[in-house]
Amino acid sequence: MSEFDLIDALLADEPPLPSWVSMGPGDDAAVLAPPPDSEWVLSTDTLVEGRHFFAGTPPDLLAYRALAVNLSDLAAMGAAPSGFLVALVAPELDGAWCRRFSAGLRAASADSGARLVGGNLARGPLAVTVTVTGTLPRGSALLRSGAAVGDVIYVSGPIGAALAARRVLEGDAAVRAALPGMSVNEVPDALRAYLLPTARVALGAQLRGIASACIDVSDGLLADLAHICDRSSVAAQIDLESLPVKGVNPLEAVVAGDDYELLFTVPEERAMHLPDNGLALTAIGRIEHGAGVRLMAADGREVAPAERGWSHF
Amino acid sequence: MSEFDLIDALLADEPPLPSWVSMGPGDDAAVLAPPPDSEWVLSTDTLVEGRHFFAGTPPDLLAYRALAVNLSDLAAMGAAPSGFLVALVAPELDGAWCRRFSAGLRAASADSGARLVGGNLARGPLAVTVTVTGTLPRGSALLRSGAAVGDVIYVSGPIGAALAARRVLEGDAAVRAALPGMSVNEVPDALRAYLLPTARVALGAQLRGIASACIDVSDGLLADLAHICDRSSVAAQIDLESLPVKGVNPLEAVVAGDDYELLFTVPEERAMHLPDNGLALTAIGRIEHGAGVRLMAADGREVAPAERGWSHF
Repeated sequence: MSEFDLIDALLADEPPLPSWVSMGPGDDAAVLAPPPDSEWVLSTDTLVEGRHFFAGTPPDLLAYRALAVNLSDLAAMGAAPSGFLVALVAPELDGAWCRRFSAGLRAASADSGARLVGGNLARGPLAVTVTVTGTLPRGSALLRSGAAVGDVIYVSGPIGAALAARRVLEGDAAVRAALPGMSVNEVPDALRAYLLPTARVALGAQLRGIASACIDVSDGLLADLAHICDRSSVAAQIDLESLPVKGVNPLEAVVAGDDYELLFTVPEERAMHLPDNGLALTAIGRIEHGAGVRLMAADGREVAPAERGWSHF
Repeated sequence: MSEFDLIDALLADEPPLPSWVSMGPGDDAAVLAPPPDSEWVLSTDTLVEGRHFFAGTPPDLLAYRALAVNLSDLAAMGAAPSGFLVALVAPELDGAWCRRFSAGLRAASADSGARLVGGNLARGPLAVTVTVTGTLPRGSALLRSGAAVGDVIYVSGPIGAALAARRVLEGDAAVRAALPGMSVNEVPDALRAYLLPTARVALGAQLRGIASACIDVSDGLLADLAHICDRSSVAAQIDLESLPVKGVNPLEAVVAGDDYELLFTVPEERAMHLPDNGLALTAIGRIEHGAGVRLMAADGREVAPAERGWSHF
């Protein structure tokens, strides 16, 4: 198939573009019309076969995850997703693969507002780079730098579940053998946290004006909290017992990556404004004077995590 | 080196960000403040080692080319570049490599207005995906779909030069052996058209309100003109003799890719408004009724090109 036939296959089932997409796929570039008084938020992330996803991952699952991890970055800024571009590098492609890939994109973007507006195809070792863009009312971005002493630290859901799912995939050859036959709707629950992470897009937007700092848990909770502390020139203390954990032990969970929950700080007087949206927002610690992150056991002693967090490079 | 040390090396020599970058590298996403009443233009392109650039290409040349081909897409829309994101996949990186890479980005973006606002590092086979963003006054994008019967077809400079340069690199082992030692300022003239293409950014913006359709010559002049014809529901006739060609014969030049000149159509009554900016804007043919692109020799006979245009996939 030619490049243009493949692009047609990728776009075959796309619904009509919304009015704020002045030009979608098919010209030299996409053109978006932002709402007045908005800022534009941009992020990009690459998934490489064998490093960020297992060989044999079916195209819809690959697409889903590639888009979700990017939407998570928008969520962490409090931005409303608008469009995304997909730069797909693959050794070869056919129409069926492309159709499944775009189905995965649609599944990951459902209800998020994000629409496929452009991209690029190139031949090479399988890797997917998604670039997402979203909008924010001017000056309302949730930065890493706004945490202040006394703020309460929250996480939007359990951590460790993605690591647990990755361990199933790594340790069970039968599960890996079944992976190519899975589709987005058929992924076993034990694998969903890793294969189909949920970007907390609605929560991110709800946290504007409430959270003082925000990040998504992609590198591991301790490492990501350390980013907030560095940028905010503060320290953090985490109560290990309060931490919502799933599938692994707490000292592993705090250094596990890929959870894509939001980790955010809230001044105490604004905690009553936190949204009631079905997510279990859990207070896990406090921002303090100083630098670095301390992990405290129930008996008040500081404990060390299992190992260092995930490095994307 | 850690991911964060590498990012520091990439950003080490960057000048301060302009006021319209509300948040540059270092948070979950970049935040840009667009001018009022603007639209946002987005494009992405990947260069893969061995396919879009030669193994051994030094990091500054790689970065230059990866950004230039993306800026060319903005130019073809008439957009003013604002920011770009770099998703870099590499088997390994060190600080010196990153510093040279970012020097190449600065060289390619000089005077364009584009600033590095974010990106991603991942380990894997060498490939660079750049995503560029720019702004346009609302409704002023130069689309492929605006060409009308009678419009004059222009190209902004000679075509074929990139193919000629690629042939030198492909055919001369000594040149290829010297490639890793070249820097942006030391590339021999014979290789510049391929290694260091110039995005026609200033021209693109000047053509707003003048050109009826525009595209950049990345796939080959015939293929790119066919895109304009398809989207505009018109035909085109090219006078082979009028074509500015460099380094190859005209029938090869029309199917050579990678020239990154702008190819655009202008209603006759607006031709007097074409900018006098030092570029040799050359009229090469006419838009006509019908479909497809015809190539005419001086004796009035239709001629066939040498081969099909470059496919990026």
